[in-house]
Amino acid sequence: MTTLDPILLTPGPLTTTLQTKQAQLRDYGSRDIAFIDMTAALITQLNDIVHGGDDHACVLMQGSGTFSVEAALGTLIPRNGHVLVCINGEYGKRIAKICEIIQRKHKILQTGEDQPTTARMVDEALAADASLTHVSIVHCETSTGILNPLEEIAAVVAKHKRGLFIDAMSSFGAIDIDARKIRFDGVVAASGKCLESVPGMGFAILRKAALEQCKGNCHSLSLDLYDQWQAYMRTKQWRFTPPTTVVAALAEALKQFQAQGGVAGRGARYRKNCETLIDGMEKLGFVSFLPRSIQAPIITTWHAPADPKYNFNVFYDKVRERGFTLYPGKLTQVETFRVGCIGAIGDTEMKQAVDAIAAIVKEMGITQLKPAAKARAAA
Amino acid sequence: MTTLDPILLTPGPLTTTLQTKQAQLRDYGSRDIAFIDMTAALITQLNDIVHGGDDHACVLMQGSGTFSVEAALGTLIPRNGHVLVCINGEYGKRIAKICEIIQRKHKILQTGEDQPTTARMVDEALAADASLTHVSIVHCETSTGILNPLEEIAAVVAKHKRGLFIDAMSSFGAIDIDARKIRFDGVVAASGKCLESVPGMGFAILRKAALEQCKGNCHSLSLDLYDQWQAYMRTKQWRFTPPTTVVAALAEALKQFQAQGGVAGRGARYRKNCETLIDGMEKLGFVSFLPRSIQAPIITTWHAPADPKYNFNVFYDKVRERGFTLYPGKLTQVETFRVGCIGAIGDTEMKQAVDAIAAIVKEMGITQLKPAAKARAAA
Repeated sequence: MTTLDPILLTPGPLTTTLQTKQAQLRDYGSRDIAFIDMTAALITQLNDIVHGGDDHACVLMQGSGTFSVEAALGTLIPRNGHVLVCINGEYGKRIAKICEIIQRKHKILQTGEDQPTTARMVDEALAADASLTHVSIVHCETSTGILNPLEEIAAVVAKHKRGLFIDAMSSFGAIDIDARKIRFDGVVAASGKCLESVPGMGFAILRKAALEQCKGNCHSLSLDLYDQWQAYMRTKQWRFTPPTTVVAALAEALKQFQAQGGVAGRGARYRKNCETLIDGMEKLGFVSFLPRSIQAPIITTWHAPADPKYNFNVFYDKVRERGFTLYPGKLTQVETFRVGCIGAIGDTEMKQAVDAIAAIVKEMGITQLKPAAKARAAA
Repeated sequence: MTTLDPILLTPGPLTTTLQTKQAQLRDYGSRDIAFIDMTAALITQLNDIVHGGDDHACVLMQGSGTFSVEAALGTLIPRNGHVLVCINGEYGKRIAKICEIIQRKHKILQTGEDQPTTARMVDEALAADASLTHVSIVHCETSTGILNPLEEIAAVVAKHKRGLFIDAMSSFGAIDIDARKIRFDGVVAASGKCLESVPGMGFAILRKAALEQCKGNCHSLSLDLYDQWQAYMRTKQWRFTPPTTVVAALAEALKQFQAQGGVAGRGARYRKNCETLIDGMEKLGFVSFLPRSIQAPIITTWHAPADPKYNFNVFYDKVRERGFTLYPGKLTQVETFRVGCIGAIGDTEMKQAVDAIAAIVKEMGITQLKPAAKARAAA
């Protein structure tokens, strides 16, 4: 048992810098000018990351990323709307579940968990059903790490003049999303992902022309982004008590984000992390669930080794004792585990993680690293 | 401008101890055993504060206190339910607004902002309308600081066999709520109030016999306490990413809460704080909005002085420069300001706050401290 916190190779919460954590060592009054200024700066900076400009509004929301996803869906989709929900993983499914619970009509466009949703599929679906008012897409599906082709999909949705909702939870800040190039009604993310802060709040960047139509849409008081937007313009405050220390940590994390070169800098570090990780894992004999071509540099999914000596819980505990927290798989059909590449970590930590995994593989006596199916196919 | 954080004389966020803030200096994996253990301990301790025992379940919820209030209402009140909403301030009004938005039929029992809801009023209302299934009451109305007679009201609601919902946001941990003595379906509070931690999460303690009936009630995925309860029993985890640092701070704050004597200890400190504050303010000539008999030892409301030299914003800024953050009034009929007595502060800080206010009154040349109406009455 190490006394230091392990490095979190998880897709949020993740490892943050000490400066980010230390920003939480203050008691802010939520209606005090220092906090109001901090909130205003956050809103501007988050909007700037997607080049939202005056056409877009950034609205902050307490809670986890899912709270912001539900808030944006509930606010943006009118009660008589109809959403095409693109699904190739758990987070796509969650959007469909939210639509069901908040009673928004929706149609599912399902692809395999190792298959990106293509622009052509969306084009065909929209052409076939004029009643569809909106499309939802998960930019990077955290359940596998697959990257969906956002720009192409956005172009098709714009062509059909429908609204686009983007769940950018695990891509925002690391993979470019540019409101000057693509048209969306809303893009949603959270504090504890690629912006490398602590979890506890999310945010949505909404196209004002769409948002202005959303009064009274939302099924919830707490989650109503229109109401929060309006209140913010009047008062410069959060409607309900903000998580002050989480906000302060995000403000500090954004300073570091800018100093490290914004989206370009963060994306480059994560791509390097991801390459180092994949190279190392493949060298050990592990088999990736996704081909590199559709792998986002956020989180990687690995087939569980076929070796009977492999047991995820034992493997997890032993790797954790060496200072790294892995992440369970989230696929229903095949046994996998996941290793994240995001957080305040670099190349060195990824190499150390691979070294730790190598040592545990040896210690557990795992020799057959290929998955059961592939092992059989090779036999 | 002081470089230290001011003492927050606000009803949350409030001043926390350095130990509580320092508990946020760690990166917890939300599915890791250390965090799972912390969550389990929190749930037990929070339930124990109201002596909930095996008959009650504590369910944690991300976001501000209002998120937990909406979650509990949405979960507990069936879609064909009918709620008697007792109102004598902003937070009672907010419950009515939530009922409206989530489409739960409700009837309002309104009293003046300086008048407690009485058990007799509730008794009469329930006797008069058999269709009422639930009653909601705000224990301590933060908009004035008024204390409603919870035990008497609970007895009447139990007599009529209706469900009781208690918003105990600003009383939980400081004023006794005992599930062995009173019957409620749900009591809701949050981290950043009398438990003296940072804001960012809330919780509900729910009577299991009631909660078991609540599957499918909730209008929201994120806010569904039944779903979170079920998931917790299966996984010991939060359904959606928890605010890990906020949870860690609350765990640490609860240790201090227990060490300081629990509800009895905290209540005694706050009562002393409140008496010191009221004595000092009245000596200066300020007039309290509430008589002491119905004043909860949480937050005090003061009439704005009639003196034309008084201006709240100037007064606020000057008191803040001396190290204390006040709170604006929230009454529509009369101009007031508020001073809280809660947080990791004691008698000494309250005396210093009164001294600071006295100095500013003198500096601003305010001589007429009585409010306009009373000043006229005396003339």
